[in-house]
Amino acid sequence: MPLRGLAKAKNFTLGPTAPMKTFTENINIQTKEANKLKNSGKKHSLTNDLQNENLYKYESEIKSDFDRIVPTLKEIARIQHHDDFINTAQTISKKDLGIDLPTHILDKSWVKPLDMRALYAWCVFKQHEKLSVNFFENDPLEGSSESESAIDFEKFLLDCGIHLLDITPCSDGRLAHSVAYVMRIPFSSVRRRSHAGALFDIENTVNRWVKTEHKRYRENMPNEPHKDTRYLKVVTYHFSSVDPTHQGCAAHGSNDKLAAQEGGKKLLAFKEAVENSFCCGASVDLLLIGLDTDTDSLKIHLSKSDGNIDIEKTISTLEIYDSTINLSKEDAEREICQLISKKSSEDQLYGMDKFVYKLIVNNISQIDYVKKFHKGSYKEIGHAERFIGVGIGFKEVHLRNLTYFSHLDTVEEGAPDLDVGVKIFTGLNVSQDLPIPVVIRFDYSGKVPGAKERAVKDCKRVNNAISIRYKNLVDQGLLHTCLTIRDRDKIHSAKIIGMSLDKKTEEAH
Amino acid sequence: MPLRGLAKAKNFTLGPTAPMKTFTENINIQTKEANKLKNSGKKHSLTNDLQNENLYKYESEIKSDFDRIVPTLKEIARIQHHDDFINTAQTISKKDLGIDLPTHILDKSWVKPLDMRALYAWCVFKQHEKLSVNFFENDPLEGSSESESAIDFEKFLLDCGIHLLDITPCSDGRLAHSVAYVMRIPFSSVRRRSHAGALFDIENTVNRWVKTEHKRYRENMPNEPHKDTRYLKVVTYHFSSVDPTHQGCAAHGSNDKLAAQEGGKKLLAFKEAVENSFCCGASVDLLLIGLDTDTDSLKIHLSKSDGNIDIEKTISTLEIYDSTINLSKEDAEREICQLISKKSSEDQLYGMDKFVYKLIVNNISQIDYVKKFHKGSYKEIGHAERFIGVGIGFKEVHLRNLTYFSHLDTVEEGAPDLDVGVKIFTGLNVSQDLPIPVVIRFDYSGKVPGAKERAVKDCKRVNNAISIRYKNLVDQGLLHTCLTIRDRDKIHSAKIIGMSLDKKTEEAH
Repeated sequence: MPLRGLAKAKNFTLGPTAPMKTFTENINIQTKEANKLKNSGKKHSLTNDLQNENLYKYESEIKSDFDRIVPTLKEIARIQHHDDFINTAQTISKKDLGIDLPTHILDKSWVKPLDMRALYAWCVFKQHEKLSVNFFENDPLEGSSESESAIDFEKFLLDCGIHLLDITPCSDGRLAHSVAYVMRIPFSSVRRRSHAGALFDIENTVNRWVKTEHKRYRENMPNEPHKDTRYLKVVTYHFSSVDPTHQGCAAHGSNDKLAAQEGGKKLLAFKEAVENSFCCGASVDLLLIGLDTDTDSLKIHLSKSDGNIDIEKTISTLEIYDSTINLSKEDAEREICQLISKKSSEDQLYGMDKFVYKLIVNNISQIDYVKKFHKGSYKEIGHAERFIGVGIGFKEVHLRNLTYFSHLDTVEEGAPDLDVGVKIFTGLNVSQDLPIPVVIRFDYSGKVPGAKERAVKDCKRVNNAISIRYKNLVDQGLLHTCLTIRDRDKIHSAKIIGMSLDKKTEEAH
Repeated sequence: MPLRGLAKAKNFTLGPTAPMKTFTENINIQTKEANKLKNSGKKHSLTNDLQNENLYKYESEIKSDFDRIVPTLKEIARIQHHDDFINTAQTISKKDLGIDLPTHILDKSWVKPLDMRALYAWCVFKQHEKLSVNFFENDPLEGSSESESAIDFEKFLLDCGIHLLDITPCSDGRLAHSVAYVMRIPFSSVRRRSHAGALFDIENTVNRWVKTEHKRYRENMPNEPHKDTRYLKVVTYHFSSVDPTHQGCAAHGSNDKLAAQEGGKKLLAFKEAVENSFCCGASVDLLLIGLDTDTDSLKIHLSKSDGNIDIEKTISTLEIYDSTINLSKEDAEREICQLISKKSSEDQLYGMDKFVYKLIVNNISQIDYVKKFHKGSYKEIGHAERFIGVGIGFKEVHLRNLTYFSHLDTVEEGAPDLDVGVKIFTGLNVSQDLPIPVVIRFDYSGKVPGAKERAVKDCKRVNNAISIRYKNLVDQGLLHTCLTIRDRDKIHSAKIIGMSLDKKTEEAH
C-alpha cells in the first residue's frame, strides 16, 4: 500500500499536521506533473467520461460562437462597397454567427468606412444573449434548481452539514468555470460572488448569512434552524503552475502565497464578524482553495489545531490524481478516503471530510478534461476573456476565459475591480483596435413591486458611471456597453434593455 | 359633548370613513389655526412643560454655537493685520465659540487675505464635533438606549404590537427634529433613514426587516418571533401651512398631495415586497404622516377598509389641539381617545390606535413648544440648515434646520438627494460667499474585524466622489468636507479623521 505510506509521510489529513512542502516546491512538482500528464494517454478510473464529453461540447459550441465573430466581420469588411451590401452582410452573419447585424450601422457604409468596432461589440452582445437564452431554456449544464443533479447535490450538502455553499472565486476569467467545471457543482446549488483577488465583501456576506438563517427559521428551508449545519464560505484564489510569477493573480502581484494569506484573512474576518455580531453560538465554516489555472487542479488548504486555516499545508488534487491513476475505481476511492481521514470508504466520511472527498473526485474528472481536450495544460495560460460582466447576476456564465466578472452595485465602490478588467481588455482588445464589450446586468426579484424599474435604473446609472470613468475609451468607440436585466424569480434569460450602439433618436426641433 | 359630535361629523376614526376635507381646505384651516394660536397665550393641559423647557434650552444652546460663528469670524477678520493676530484670534474663538482655530490657516494672513471660507467651514465642523461629544456623553435629549424614557417607550411599542419602529422623514432640515421634538420619541428607540421626498429604498428596508426578524428568532429580541407584533414603517412627508406652494417639499414640487401619494405608494410597495418575498403571513404595518413645517403639527393618515392608506382623510393634531385646549387633562385625554376609536380612555386603546394616541399627545407638547418659543409658527419657514450630513449615521442630530441629510452608501446612488442639498446650500451659503460645509459620516460595528478601516475607506471614497461631482465649488473653496466615523456598538461620539482644510503635507523631492 504505497499510497497510505505517502499519506502518512506527507500528512494528508484535514487535522493538524507537521509542515508539508513549500509553495514553490509544490508548484515545481505540479509543473512536472503537468508535463508528465501531457505525455500520458491514460485516464483516471474515477473520471466521468460522459460528463466530460457533454461539457466539452458545450464549451466548444459557445466559444466558437464568440470566436467566429472576427473572421465573419473580416469577410463583411471586405465587401462593404459591394452591391447589395446590407443583404449580403446579413446573410453572412446569419449563416456564420446566427445573428442579425444592426441595420443603422450597416446603412452608413456608403458615407464612411463601416464601424467595425461597433459591429464587433454588437456581435459579442448578441452571442451573450444567445448563450443566456440557451442556458435558461435548455439547462445545458444540467444544474438548474429543478435538475436531478441539483436536488441530489443539495441533499449531499446537508449530509455534509452545509446548508449554504457560498463561493468567491477571483474575478479573473480563468476562474469563471470554477463551479460548473473545476468543482462540478450544479450552478443553482451555490452562491457565487466573484471579486478581484477573491477578496469578498464582509458586510455583504454577513447580510447574506442573516438572510440564509432567517429563511431557515421562517421556512425551515433548506433545513430546520436547530439542525447542526453551517453556512460554508469558500474562497478560491489562483496561481499558474506553468508561469507562476507572471500568470498568477494580478490583484496579489502573482504571489500565490500572498493570495492564499489574504483569502484566509478574509475568511477568518467573516467568521469573526458572524461570531461577534450574533449570539447563541452563531458561526460559519470556512474553506480556502487554490486553483492552478493551467491544469484546473486544486490545492485544498488544511485546518490547523486552533481552527485557523493552514496557509502552508494543502491537499493537491494533482498529486492525488497522479498517485491513484493506476488504481481501480474502488481502490482509488479508498485511497482518497484514507488520505483525507484514515477511513476506508466514503460512507464513513462526515462533514467537511465528506465535502472535500467529493471535491477531489469531481476535480479528478476536470484534470482528465484538461488532459484530454487541452493537452493537460491550457494553451491560453493568460487572459482571453470575451467580455466584461458588470453588476449583479450572470448565473449563466460558466466557461473559462469567457467573462471577467466585476460584481458591483456601484462603479464608485467597484472601480478597483473594474479597472483591472479594463486593463486586461486594453491588452486583449484595444491593442488590436477592438472595443471592450461590457455587459451590464442587474438581476431583480419580480415579486417585489418596482424592482424591475429599479434594475433598469441601476443599469443606466452604472452605464453612466462607466461612460464618465472611461470617457476616453468610450469617446473613441473602444468601449461599448450592453444593458441587461433578469427576473431571478423566473427561469428566463437576460433581456437586453439598451446598448451604447443603439440608433440615436433625432431630437425634435 | 360637542367634540364627540365633531368626531362623528368628521369621521375621526382610523377605520374606513366617508371623505373628509380636501388638502387645500385643511391647509387654509390650519393657517387660520396657526394665526389664532399666535395670538393666544393659553397652553394645552396635556403639554409637558418641563420637557419643553429642556428641549428649548438644548435647541438654543446648540444653534447659538453655530450662529455665533459669523459674528466671531467678522471680528477676527477685522484684526487680521494687527499685532499678535494669531493669539488674539485664538483667544476670541476660544471665548466666543469654545474652539481653537487652525493655525496653518491663520498663519497665512500676512501673505494673503485670511481664508474666511476655510475658517467658517472649520468652525462648523468643530461645533458639530462638540455637539456629538455632548450628545453621546451627556444624553441631553434623554433618549439613549439606557435611558428610562427609551426603556419605557420600547415597552410601550411592544404593547402597541410594534417590534420595530422605522421612520423615514424627508431629508429636509425642517424635519431633522421629527423624532425627538415633533413626535417626542427617544432617539434610540427608532430607526431613522431620511431621504429626499421621504422616498426610502425598498430593498434596503426589506434587508432591515429581515435582520429584525432574524434577531427575534435567534435572540427573542425585542420579543419572541411568534408574538403577534409587526415592523412599523412610517413615512413623514411635509408641507407648509404658511406658504404651501413654495415652502413644501421640493422633491414633490411643493405639492403636498403628491408628497402624500408618493409616500403612500412607497409604503405599499414595501409591504407587498415583504408579503411576496416571504412565507407564513409575513407582513408589516404602515403609517403615513404629514408634517406642517411651520407649526410642527401632524396630519395622520387614516386607513381605508381595504387596508390601504387614505390619502385624503387625516387626523389633524392642530385641530385636536384647538378643539381640546379648554379642557382639563382628563377630559382632553378622553376626547382624543374618542376621536381615535370611540373609546373613553387610553387603557382601552390597542395596537395602532394606542400608538396614534401617543403621537397626538406628544405632538400637542410640540405645538405648544412652537407656540411658546417660536410664536406659534417658525420665523424661518424655509431652509436654514447649518451643514449637510452625508453617509450613514448622524444619530446625534435632532434639531430643526440644523442638517440636511443625505443618507447614502455611494454618491453614485445618492446623487439626486445630495444635489438637492447642494442646491439648497447654494442659496443659503454660496450666495453669501460662504462655503457649503459637508460632514461625511460612516458608522461601523467595532465588533466586526476591519469594519473601522472600511468606514475610513468609505469616507475617503465618498469624499473623492464629492470632489469630482462638485469640482467647481470645491476648487473655489466653496465646498468643504469633514470626514467622520463612529463605532455604533459603543457610546462614544463621532471622530474626525480628516478635513478638506487639513494642512497639505509637503511632498518629498
